Amino acid sequence: MRVLLTGGAGYIGSHTALVLLERGHEVVVLDDFSNSSTEAIRRVEELAGRGIPVVRADLADRAHAIAALDGVDFDAAIHLAGLKAVGESVEQPIRYYRVNLDSTLVLLELMRERGVTRLVFSSSATVYGDPAYLPQDEEHPVGVGLTNPYGWSKAMNEQIIRDAGAAWPELGAVLLRYFNPVGAHPSGRIGEDPAGVPNNLMPFIAQVAVGKRDRLSVFGDGYPTVDGTGVRDYIHVMDLAEGHVAALEHLSAGVTAYNLGSGVGSSVLEVVRAFEEASGRSVPYAIVPPRAGDVAEVVADPAKANAELGWRTTRGLAEACRDSWAWQSANPDGYRA
Amino acid sequence: MRVLLTGGAGYIGSHTALVLLERGHEVVVLDDFSNSSTEAIRRVEELAGRGIPVVRADLADRAHAIAALDGVDFDAAIHLAGLKAVGESVEQPIRYYRVNLDSTLVLLELMRERGVTRLVFSSSATVYGDPAYLPQDEEHPVGVGLTNPYGWSKAMNEQIIRDAGAAWPELGAVLLRYFNPVGAHPSGRIGEDPAGVPNNLMPFIAQVAVGKRDRLSVFGDGYPTVDGTGVRDYIHVMDLAEGHVAALEHLSAGVTAYNLGSGVGSSVLEVVRAFEEASGRSVPYAIVPPRAGDVAEVVADPAKANAELGWRTTRGLAEACRDSWAWQSANPDGYRA
Repeated sequence: MRVLLTGGAGYIGSHTALVLLERGHEVVVLDDFSNSSTEAIRRVEELAGRGIPVVRADLADRAHAIAALDGVDFDAAIHLAGLKAVGESVEQPIRYYRVNLDSTLVLLELMRERGVTRLVFSSSATVYGDPAYLPQDEEHPVGVGLTNPYGWSKAMNEQIIRDAGAAWPELGAVLLRYFNPVGAHPSGRIGEDPAGVPNNLMPFIAQVAVGKRDRLSVFGDGYPTVDGTGVRDYIHVMDLAEGHVAALEHLSAGVTAYNLGSGVGSSVLEVVRAFEEASGRSVPYAIVPPRAGDVAEVVADPAKANAELGWRTTRGLAEACRDSWAWQSANPDGYRA
Repeated sequence: MRVLLTGGAGYIGSHTALVLLERGHEVVVLDDFSNSSTEAIRRVEELAGRGIPVVRADLADRAHAIAALDGVDFDAAIHLAGLKAVGESVEQPIRYYRVNLDSTLVLLELMRERGVTRLVFSSSATVYGDPAYLPQDEEHPVGVGLTNPYGWSKAMNEQIIRDAGAAWPELGAVLLRYFNPVGAHPSGRIGEDPAGVPNNLMPFIAQVAVGKRDRLSVFGDGYPTVDGTGVRDYIHVMDLAEGHVAALEHLSAGVTAYNLGSGVGSSVLEVVRAFEEASGRSVPYAIVPPRAGDVAEVVADPAKANAELGWRTTRGLAEACRDSWAWQSANPDGYRA
């Protein structure tokens, strides 16, 4: 298949592009490079031994995106483009809604116009809000207790895609609810390259390990978990990328949600220790007060994706730390030269 | 105050424009006239004895709307622009989301840029979805069991405005959850002018009474209500318009939702009888199967708006039928000459 990969230069996009190419698909990347680098694409091309056509455009800018995609054919879209920083979304809600909602609406309009019926959408376990039970399966309530525009924009996009599917029965769409993506390609050539202070745990730990930051702040150690720190379901980005390709290859008419998670919870301190072990570096940390809106534990039930997509995670936290360290230590400043 | 009234040429907009002018406010109407008529504005001007500046623009078209509003000053916005046909929203979800969400996002961006902090938003009791209890107050759950993109777009817009307010504490916004607006200005000069087959009960009844349609279809008579037909809370459009002005005049920082309803439920057959009495015409009807997604009864608890806005409905179903008939009989083809 020829796959339009929106946000294809980002962290998840670059790894997904590589897996798509390795599986014999063609890839066209659409990205505005507002939070990503052309160097990521260059490295994916180098790893895959194949070129990737790139369309530079902001998908949320309808006129611009439609003009930029004129003549660019594709059979399916994997839609990752969007803004993703939770804290920033609270400060800039209108921008987040506009970018995240309009990019999906523009893509759906374009697909409908062209009769492209295959869509894989980058959603998030964030849509589950307050955990009603653990592990969370796909029947867990959505949209209850969401605390930020980022999470709401994912829940709204899911609803928009469901309604688009109800009006357009040929549409085959999957909503992939990511848990916590971590790690990097084992080559260390591509990985997560946050601009500024990392919002996510593992890149922050990696920057502490490599000496770019003094210490990790651990937000709270009074949660009812194994060691009092928050527990999350970390999923290796290569497993996540394979999940996208499995979803793409299993698409049929209708709109279906799948969890992409490992089913295993790890505490912040467990991640710290695993990273120390993988890197041979120490990761100093300080316990600081918990953040408003954080919950004690989030763990996926990945049974549905396991059964229906024939997909499961094959890499654990140790591999994620190893690969994250390979990336961070070889690229202390990410893709910046 | 100088009020930007988006969708100001529509049914609710035209009545709200008139009440605003009568209360001494200035009004600038923004409308794309895709589902409304310049004749409505002309008649409001005639009733008020004052002119109304009109900006013809699609608010969801960012570049166009911003250019069209360049140099147009306002102190507050009453945002009614949007698509509103429930059934059509199921068939055209992408269009509904784009128009209804983008118009709100563009308006919020513009207000933020200009430092305009007063917003009255046209929401709907539809956001309550399946009634968990009756009458519904503003604490009723929102977004559970919604069955169409129109309703979702209202719930999403509420969330967007709430998040905008959290990031911008000076914003004073009210979310007005309309129950079922009916009636017309008592002069019969302005009223509801649906294009094609009316989606709402009273305009349909009025067209039967005036001889434009053979009979009313009543969707189900097996509901657990007074006579088996669906019960709704009908609110006279002049009461609704006064509610907008009360909300505008009571705005303070923060985002607050208010029900605009009468607190009284009427069945379909009660509305038919009231209309027959008011018009002196007979309204033949046929019972047909219930529609998917319809609920037995929806009734507002308007206590919060009564208490906090100093507003309450002063017109009942009889007045609504009388005024709807005055409008329909004098304008059998609406605003079309």
